Amino acid sequence: MSASTYAVRRANAMASVEAAGLDGLLVAPGPDLVYLTGHAPPPLERLTMLVMPVNADPLLIVPALERPLAEMAPGAPGLSIADWRDARDDPYALVAQALRPGRYAITDHTWASHLLALQRTAADRAFVSTGETLPLLRAVKDADEIERLRAAAAAADAVFAEIVALGFEGRAEREVATELARLLQEHGHQRAEFMIVGSGPNAASSHHEAGDRLIAVGDAVVMDFGGVMDQYCSDITRTVFVGEPTPEQREVYDVVRAAQQAAFQAVRPGVQAQEVDRVARGVIAEAGYGERFVHRTGHGIGLEVHEAPYIVEGDATALKPGMTFSDEPGIYLEGRFGVRIEDQVVVTSEGAERLNEATREVTVVA
Amino acid sequence: MSASTYAVRRANAMASVEAAGLDGLLVAPGPDLVYLTGHAPPPLERLTMLVMPVNADPLLIVPALERPLAEMAPGAPGLSIADWRDARDDPYALVAQALRPGRYAITDHTWASHLLALQRTAADRAFVSTGETLPLLRAVKDADEIERLRAAAAAADAVFAEIVALGFEGRAEREVATELARLLQEHGHQRAEFMIVGSGPNAASSHHEAGDRLIAVGDAVVMDFGGVMDQYCSDITRTVFVGEPTPEQREVYDVVRAAQQAAFQAVRPGVQAQEVDRVARGVIAEAGYGERFVHRTGHGIGLEVHEAPYIVEGDATALKPGMTFSDEPGIYLEGRFGVRIEDQVVVTSEGAERLNEATREVTVVA
Repeated sequence: MSASTYAVRRANAMASVEAAGLDGLLVAPGPDLVYLTGHAPPPLERLTMLVMPVNADPLLIVPALERPLAEMAPGAPGLSIADWRDARDDPYALVAQALRPGRYAITDHTWASHLLALQRTAADRAFVSTGETLPLLRAVKDADEIERLRAAAAAADAVFAEIVALGFEGRAEREVATELARLLQEHGHQRAEFMIVGSGPNAASSHHEAGDRLIAVGDAVVMDFGGVMDQYCSDITRTVFVGEPTPEQREVYDVVRAAQQAAFQAVRPGVQAQEVDRVARGVIAEAGYGERFVHRTGHGIGLEVHEAPYIVEGDATALKPGMTFSDEPGIYLEGRFGVRIEDQVVVTSEGAERLNEATREVTVVA
Repeated sequence: MSASTYAVRRANAMASVEAAGLDGLLVAPGPDLVYLTGHAPPPLERLTMLVMPVNADPLLIVPALERPLAEMAPGAPGLSIADWRDARDDPYALVAQALRPGRYAITDHTWASHLLALQRTAADRAFVSTGETLPLLRAVKDADEIERLRAAAAAADAVFAEIVALGFEGRAEREVATELARLLQEHGHQRAEFMIVGSGPNAASSHHEAGDRLIAVGDAVVMDFGGVMDQYCSDITRTVFVGEPTPEQREVYDVVRAAQQAAFQAVRPGVQAQEVDRVARGVIAEAGYGERFVHRTGHGIGLEVHEAPYIVEGDATALKPGMTFSDEPGIYLEGRFGVRIEDQVVVTSEGAERLNEATREVTVVA
């Protein structure tokens, strides 16, 4: 992405900062810094921070030894860079100097140790979280971002299409997870980040990872996997059956699928995020499984696998074209089985489009 | 590691908390939580927090959907677990209820968004960083941890022994980095985390990653790489020469090697971390390169690749047997070349032992 893309993003961010009545924005390493500068150092105990006060130029404060990398960042043109050296300089004082008294949003991912040091050093500045004050900083994706999310989703779809031929019976969940990771990389992911494989009773634990359990005939197997491709995340869930599903398994599957479809059809500009959650929850409650849908319907996706908006009661974000998030209702029958179906969707001017198109039909595997 | 190992660690942590005059310890996902419970969820916007008040039982607060995973953690026996559900419960209120007014250490890695919510919800509690109040929580390793660090270091040594045969001339830095990652995995690492390859002028940027530059005869190539094996980190740096080094390159190499050796020999129980830094810095300054050694001499290593103690002016930690850290001085001649040599060392009852034993002799590659 070009330097001008980053300059536009920073200008938009500053407009949001002013609209929120804040005096500036502080950005630590992580997705917000990548979004605003292209600079992607790991979060560390050495402070790196982009300081964006209103009515003053942005300043990127970096450890001296990371200065060359910061200067090479695609969004560096237009940024002043100040560096500090181990044992000689106090990086928090550098930040404080750039901030007049006031109220500043600080990236959610900033380490507590950095925030506490800033609160002490810059005592007459108040800090508030970006999640509460500027939750939608990265929520509306531009065309380039949507293309990257689409490519990542297509790769995840291709992985699903291949994994169903693996042969599940007698295999440990962990083996399936390893194969999912390998396929994600084969299909262009730089990083395979999560490969949840929950079989049989483990499928009823929505965040079960993948263990030693051997998959058996009669199991529902929830596979929730994804990673990072060209900086943007994939995240898909499909539930397959080892051998023909029982009538109860099929019923639960059909309810989840109907809820997932109803939520998808509820997405359009102006609708609140929580309304989409209510639609999915309504379908599941109507079928008598309301208490078994123990999580929200979805989460935004982009540079992070979970980001705003959240498709959950209490998130009143009015959806806008370009917002991207998951649609992933589930039903979990403790000790027995579970079903979840997840696609990523993008809000369009008239409704929504799915980024994932792997089959949602009942899938029986060997 | 067994449940009793975690119970002992928690008891030791509480003793440190009391000795520091604190009222408790709050632990978010990350290395401190792994260390104290074996529970290793990713840090997310959904709050997971181990609450350890003095004079009360520890309480692990988790999202409902992660409860089964938390219960399976090897350190879960002896822990009460409380869960909260999306949109229904306020997890910060759960934490606040467990804390009487007082002063609490909170893990450095806790997200700022979580800390800010806690500061608001638990208004008459003060929070301070573990890095400032309990910096040595994980610093003294037990025998099992040292064995894991030794194994990770040995794997990194083996990677170096193989990479020198690669043939560097004409290859892009990025290709060498890819090969380092592959070899780390081949030698048992679950994750290859960083593969810095800086050649020629790029070697003068100590945190240059690995780019498109083609390596040429006459280059010094700094390779600083490592990852995670059985949860513990490796981190080694070696500098090789493509073809015979110039007299100046050899001189700089010899100075760095002498500084690294002098620092190693300065390590013994009771010596302060900063004194080890002074020794390395003294050797380099004596040779006239003091201004070209732009970073600290080292950092602790364990579950994190950078952790306390830090071998830097200002860290007065008295070294103790079982502490593990890097010894990695460097000299960087901007625009020309750089040299860094890094080993991990462990403090013994009488001095120190190196965990890395890859050759430190001048190494010429093709």
